[in-house]
Order: sequence, then structure tokens, then C-alpha cells
Amino acid sequence: MSKPVGCKRWAIAEGYIPETSNGPEPAMLSHETVCLLNASEHEAHVEITVYFSDRDPAGPYRITVAPRRTMHVRFNDLRDPEPIPKGTDYASVIESDVPIVVQHTRLDSRQAENALMTTMAYADRCGS
Amino acid sequence: MSKPVGCKRWAIAEGYIPETSNGPEPAMLSHETVCLLNASEHEAHVEITVYFSDRDPAGPYRITVAPRRTMHVRFNDLRDPEPIPKGTDYASVIESDVPIVVQHTRLDSRQAENALMTTMAYADRCGS
Amino acid sequence: MSKPVGCKRWAIAEGYIPETSNGPEPAMLSHETVCLLNASEHEAHVEITVYFSDRDPAGPYRITVAPRRTMHVRFNDLRDPEPIPKGTDYASVIESDVPIVVQHTRLDSRQAENALMTTMAYADRCGS
Amino acid sequence: MSKPVGCKRWAIAEGYIPETSNGPEPAMLSHETVCLLNASEHEAHVEITVYFSDRDPAGPYRITVAPRRTMHVRFNDLRDPEPIPKGTDYASVIESDVPIVVQHTRLDSRQAENALMTTMAYADRCGS
Repeated sequence: MSKPVGCKRWAIAEGYIPETSNGPEPAMLSHETVCLLNASEHEAHVEITVYFSDRDPAGPYRITVAPRRTMHVRFNDLRDPEPIPKGTDYASVIESDVPIVVQHTRLDSRQAENALMTTMAYADRCGS
Repeated sequence: MSKPVGCKRWAIAEGYIPETSNGPEPAMLSHETVCLLNASEHEAHVEITVYFSDRDPAGPYRITVAPRRTMHVRFNDLRDPEPIPKGTDYASVIESDVPIVVQHTRLDSRQAENALMTTMAYADRCGS
Repeated sequence: MSKPVGCKRWAIAEGYIPETSNGPEPAMLSHETVCLLNASEHEAHVEITVYFSDRDPAGPYRITVAPRRTMHVRFNDLRDPEPIPKGTDYASVIESDVPIVVQHTRLDSRQAENALMTTMAYADRCGS
Repeated sequence: MSKPVGCKRWAIAEGYIPETSNGPEPAMLSHETVCLLNASEHEAHVEITVYFSDRDPAGPYRITVAPRRTMHVRFNDLRDPEPIPKGTDYASVIESDVPIVVQHTRLDSRQAENALMTTMAYADRCGS
């Protein structure tokens, strides 16, 4: 089998969960998502560390992604070890024991019509 | 002739076709697109595999891009071997036998005004 | 002096100039832009080739960026050797004789409120 | 301890602070942001140089990011050595003495509903 696609460490410098929303939940709730793709044949054990501007980092938040599956995780839904406060600047580092692919998305419905943005995360440790 | 631009494997971790739309079709139909650029002198034989959160992957979806052409493929329009369900998280891996460039876009018209997002896909196998 | 930032070849797989607009021109005219940054001490001689789905490529469009300057070029404004048709899928390859940085943006005002998207282009020939 | 994530030089080719806004400030003020993540154990001394289309670059703007912290800096708020004019095309190069991760965002509220866009910056000097 060929080498699985992706890298073992990723980073997202932007993070902000808007405090308000318009439209039906859960689809139109303002949210930020980290999309994880594990195209490998092995379970991916993922740890997310969340950085802030004025306090020590939170985490790690532990997530397991089954082989050949994707998981789109809303930062809004992270609870253990602690929820991420709304209306607060943050950033995140995502580490995995098998190569994965990571993409970041925000749906912002603070005003009446939604706005969207996305980017691939910064990829690191792609050689192993 | 110089080496063609691009890579032979790409991945997109985000995927979601909204279930509803506003505005005139087909332009304003909510859709996700994978944009393929084949700047080489050879036909590109492309295979897309689609990953889900709770079932085995679908595909491969086979697409041929002529030399020195671009093709913008809506995930909404993929039919063979099976359509991609709306309102469902997915991700994709795109493989080609010649180097290509891959970019991902969503137009979301669930609310009255459209929203757009785009990113280059994650590039892999760029050295060959 | 340190090595200038950037690469000598870039590619953008997405391209589409909407046919309609809302709001005051030129700011709110639907447009796609290629943003070029030449942080080097030398003039950058840039050539853009535009690829289509159903005909041979157009170009090269030639642009000179002065040393230590940025230039944000609307695809809408390219005229020589030919304008880029609206409402048509395209893609582009950007080549420069000195390292530059290339980013792609679309402002879409087909509906009453504008939508924005951006991504860094795919970078190639970064080692020289 | 493992090697810190990121690179020592980054570039963003797009830059434009809209002249007008709709909605409550400061959240809905049209703005562009550079998001800096310093996941290392050392202070990051960051210098931003801003490039224009028709004049010499401005800066450097000096910013210190504490260890294990993120800082989201609005270009609107840069004052020393000079403010960045609104309604003007610009671009930026971000240099740091320790590896950091850099992402770019614009919230545009020129029309009644906001629009968002984001991308990771172009990464350079990642090997050291």
C-alpha cells in the first residue's frame, strides 16, 4: 500500500467563535470547525492544544479518528478538559500519531446572512 | 519543455453540500467544486475518493482532463459510482497520473445572500 | 542582503468572473484579483497564462512589478492579447524571473451583499 | 522538547482595509488581521514590513509575542512608524526570530452583511 496522505502536526493561527448567531441551529449557529481526514489504514489519535493571548494553553483535547474516515469537529463542542470561550482570540496546534490532513473553517452568522471562510492548516512533520 | 506545474496527489479535509439554496440555478445553487488544472502536455487521468464520518469511502470517481485545460467539477454532479449525499460531512483525496493543481471552493446560498470560501488543496507527491 | 521571499512559478486552479454585480463600481464590481508581491531589489517580469475548459490557453499577459512593490491585478482588466470572458471557468499559471508571492481573491457581488474568498496560490520553483 | 512549529518568514500578497463599515464596532468594523501563533518556549520578536504599489515600504512594525501565546493584530491598529492608509492596496512580509505560524483574515462590512476571507500566509525559512 502507498504512503498515507498528510502530516503529523498542523497549526491554525486564527481562532474566534462569534458570540451571536442568526438563523436555525445547529447549521446556522456561528462556529469554527477543524476538519480532520484520516485516509490511512490505522486509527489516528489526535491531540489539539489551544493557545490564547493572555493565559496558558488549554488541552490537550483528545479525538480518535477511525481509519479511512473524516471527522469535522466544531471548536464550539470541545468540552474536555474545558470549553473554549466565545468572543476570544485563540489558535491551535493539531498533532496525530498517523498522517492526517487538516482544514479550518468558520461560519459566521452574526449578521443576518452568513459568511464563510476556509484554509488548509499549516502542515508540519510531513516527512515521517 | 519545462517540468509541468503541480503534484500527483491532493487532499481536501472539508466537504459539505448544503441541502438548500436561494437564487437562480445553476449559478446560485449551493455547491462545492474541485477545480483541476492540467497545464501539462498530456491527458490527466484523475481519481477522486470521497471519505465520510460513518461509512466506507466512495469512489473512485474518474475524470479525464485534457492537456492544457482546466476542469471545475461540482461534487454535486458526481454520479458514478454513486451521488454524494447532501447535508453530510465528507472529505476527498484526488490522485492523477500527471502533475495537476487542485483548489476547493464552496458557494453557500442557504441564506438569502451567498457566501464563498476557497483554499488550495493539500499538495502531496510533488517531487515526481 | 538576504534571499528574497517567494517563488518563480505559481498556479491558481479556480477562476470565474461573475457576469453581474450589485453596488457602486469599481469597488463593488464582481472581480477576481491576482495579488503580486515583489519584495526583491529587482524588477519582476511576470507572465500570466490563462487556461480554459474548452479552448487553448490565452496569453501570456505581461506585467512588470517594480522592486519592493506590490501590484493587485484584476483579471477583469487584462486586455492584451485578449480579454478574459465573464461567466467562464478558467485557471492561471504565473511565472516570474525573480521570486514573488502570489495570492488570489474574488469579490462576488452577484447578490445584494458581497462575498469574498482568498487563498495563497500554489507555489512552485521556490528553490532557485 | 520537540522542535517548535512554524517558520521564521511569512508573506501575504493581499492587503486592503475597506474605507467603510456597517454594524457595531469594533467587531463589525471592516478590518484585516494578521494572526500570529508563537507555540515556542521563547519570546518572538516580530517585524512586519508593509509594501505598496506606488511608494517605498513602511515599517518595520515591531510586535512581541510571548511564549505559548497567540496575538491577532489588526493592520488597522498599526501606528508606529505610521498608520496604514485605508482604501489602498498593500502587501506584507512578517519576520520573526523564533518559528511562528501566520494566518491572514479580512472582515469586510462595506455592505450591510459582512464577508469573510482567510488564508495561511506563504511560509518561508521553515528549515532553521
